[in-house]
Amino acid sequence: MVDVKGDVAPSAVTMDKIVELCKRRGFVFQSGEIYGGIGSTWDYGPLGVELKRNIRDAWWQDNVRMRDDVVGLEAAIITNPRVWEASGHVAGFTDPMVDCKECKQRFRADHVEGDVCPACGGQLTEARQFNMMFKTHMGPVEDSAAVAYLRPETAQGMFVNFKNVQQATRKKLPFGIAQIGKSFRNEITPGNFIFRTREFEQAEIEFFVMPGTDEEWHKRWIQDRYNWYIKYGITPERLRLRPHDPDELAFYSKATTDIEYLFPIGWSELEGIANRTDYDLKKHMEFSGENLTYFDEATGDSIVPYVIEPAGGIDRSLLAFLIDAYEEEVIDKGDGKKDKRTVLHLHKTLAPVKVAVLPLLRNRPEIVETAKNLAAELRPHMATMYDDTASIGRLYRRQDEIGTLWCITVDVQTVEEDNQVTIRDRDTMEQIRVPISDVKSILIEKLNS
Amino acid sequence: MVDVKGDVAPSAVTMDKIVELCKRRGFVFQSGEIYGGIGSTWDYGPLGVELKRNIRDAWWQDNVRMRDDVVGLEAAIITNPRVWEASGHVAGFTDPMVDCKECKQRFRADHVEGDVCPACGGQLTEARQFNMMFKTHMGPVEDSAAVAYLRPETAQGMFVNFKNVQQATRKKLPFGIAQIGKSFRNEITPGNFIFRTREFEQAEIEFFVMPGTDEEWHKRWIQDRYNWYIKYGITPERLRLRPHDPDELAFYSKATTDIEYLFPIGWSELEGIANRTDYDLKKHMEFSGENLTYFDEATGDSIVPYVIEPAGGIDRSLLAFLIDAYEEEVIDKGDGKKDKRTVLHLHKTLAPVKVAVLPLLRNRPEIVETAKNLAAELRPHMATMYDDTASIGRLYRRQDEIGTLWCITVDVQTVEEDNQVTIRDRDTMEQIRVPISDVKSILIEKLNS
Repeated sequence: MVDVKGDVAPSAVTMDKIVELCKRRGFVFQSGEIYGGIGSTWDYGPLGVELKRNIRDAWWQDNVRMRDDVVGLEAAIITNPRVWEASGHVAGFTDPMVDCKECKQRFRADHVEGDVCPACGGQLTEARQFNMMFKTHMGPVEDSAAVAYLRPETAQGMFVNFKNVQQATRKKLPFGIAQIGKSFRNEITPGNFIFRTREFEQAEIEFFVMPGTDEEWHKRWIQDRYNWYIKYGITPERLRLRPHDPDELAFYSKATTDIEYLFPIGWSELEGIANRTDYDLKKHMEFSGENLTYFDEATGDSIVPYVIEPAGGIDRSLLAFLIDAYEEEVIDKGDGKKDKRTVLHLHKTLAPVKVAVLPLLRNRPEIVETAKNLAAELRPHMATMYDDTASIGRLYRRQDEIGTLWCITVDVQTVEEDNQVTIRDRDTMEQIRVPISDVKSILIEKLNS
Repeated sequence: MVDVKGDVAPSAVTMDKIVELCKRRGFVFQSGEIYGGIGSTWDYGPLGVELKRNIRDAWWQDNVRMRDDVVGLEAAIITNPRVWEASGHVAGFTDPMVDCKECKQRFRADHVEGDVCPACGGQLTEARQFNMMFKTHMGPVEDSAAVAYLRPETAQGMFVNFKNVQQATRKKLPFGIAQIGKSFRNEITPGNFIFRTREFEQAEIEFFVMPGTDEEWHKRWIQDRYNWYIKYGITPERLRLRPHDPDELAFYSKATTDIEYLFPIGWSELEGIANRTDYDLKKHMEFSGENLTYFDEATGDSIVPYVIEPAGGIDRSLLAFLIDAYEEEVIDKGDGKKDKRTVLHLHKTLAPVKVAVLPLLRNRPEIVETAKNLAAELRPHMATMYDDTASIGRLYRRQDEIGTLWCITVDVQTVEEDNQVTIRDRDTMEQIRVPISDVKSILIEKLNS
């Protein structure tokens, strides 16, 4: 088990720098920006999508495809609202709110001191509970029979499908069901860029185990998920485990440990790993009248499995990976002068662009053609970018800033003399000169090593 | 250009058979089934998710990563509602509805003949327009200022981000923005399994071109998208192009051609490729006041690009791939008797499981261990299943039914004599015996060939 670390400084990067880089380079844009945006809602641009896809794929590969004991699921965002009655969300997924009697603004009661409006100084109402689920209506008639909710978590999709999945796959305990997908929470105070948004993407596993083995499996999943972030490059000193205090536990949880990252806003949750016991399956048995027990061949008993739930956020992971990879380096220009470069040291599996092919001169057709042909040769094997819209120094700087692993430069010597190109490493900035015909195999080897 | 084909028989498979197979084998379950489901809403089970992921990945690989002129985007499902005013959805995305004055049921006006209720014979009201967007409220106050919509299409996300994407990527015309994601339409009459659902997944490209080149690009994209379905195994005779009649065109479209598949319910749309002209960008310029023009370096002019839009559905594609792959074969058992097998001839890129490793006898530890070790060796390279829960004949039948490309059987001879295993081909049912140490390289070679 990993211990909570002592005092560590967060990365020097500020959230503002990340937001600015994300917009300028096309990772993340404000949603509906030309209309002034909306709440704290964000769209992922060309590089953001690729980074997000790589994070999802790494998660899916490690937690589903590489395991014989986890299978996938994608449940609908809008399902039968009885699901949210059984889960407790209709009755209990609430925040206490107060209204100002003067200016009519609304605030979270636990964010306001005293009973005076922080905006206008007016008198506040008593606190009332406000449900955080997004409500809508399904079908043509807007009446209460057709009320539906956007799911506030992906987890319940796994519980209500437990029997169908178990029967279709014939899996025996212990086994898990994993899902990546959007959830929606009508947070009163979203913020901190993509850290807390009303629309967000979860990556959750419900791992079903025999009662009595739950504490051991809880430990294993905590360790497993901690290791996962380390595997993809998170600095260990900025990652910690924080077990919940008993009075902090959710009503369904016997024990929960958060994996926290040292964001510029301080230590904050990346993922929670909860021991949900048999709470959810029992609730759904009660509300649906269906038998969701598991028949244990060894003992001949029908039991209700316990559940360990690692629940992470894709958007938060992406933010942590970006922050952790960010560095402003002072580099020696060779002539005694210093220069600065911004570089994203993203893990090779996550980097949105693996290789950029750059012609040294864009007005020399044979250089451009050679570079384009090489890019076309590499593209089926890895995310490849071709760029000829600036000088080579500037092109390198751009690629460093988006975390591209390697830059390949085609120069005059390539086309006039030796058919060789330079491969520049993002992290070391070292350049090696290799035959153009070897580039593909060299990079594939580096990627898979 | 591919011509519309003449009369062709649809596949012998019925929708009922597909629905039954999908549930039994874990492709698709009714959403919230233990609560009686909801509308026509479906959850993707373990095999369905893998199939869907493979379809998405094939689409993304071919349309984004393999092209130098298309980049990706993932916009939020809930964005600023002004987007839907500019796009025309708030005012015009409607179906005409009638109510029965007696039983209060509601129907699509164009689905009812006469003015008498088809349910009870009562008198119907005049037709009224019903907006098909799902409405919700963002933030803690339910008033009109906070009204928001679930996007009815992914397309507008690309239009409102056009400037940000173009500036961040420095792309020159022609170039496209691609997106895969959920959209929501409050259809009055969803149905036919996953063919028409209120929550569905789109795969759309907005391809921005110089005005005047739009008709040529429209033709190219129609052909390109037609070829894509063929590439992944759709029977050409069951795929056709159907240009829209002028009176059928959407208000934003200069020309649209549908790619239709011959479903068991008849020829139905898989994808539409529209020439949206400069309609959307101009509307967003008008409503936002922002300049969304493109500066053409060659002429020095600022122009509003034209847009070609290939808009397909992931769920519909998945349904078409399943139906087209489905076959009930009569096979010769060798002793003069006939047997029947159901097989999914899914394309190797799409098949949710590539290889299954099966021990001939599950009570022989060395056979089981050898099979499990082989599965573990293959798993990092391709989707691998291990199954020992039935006799070998039954295991083969299961794997055929889910489209697994190869079954590998570990038998007594493997562990006692020759260290060889049999590889059985799904389509030909031919078996070859190979050294266990060669299996990995043989299968990787087959997958990539």
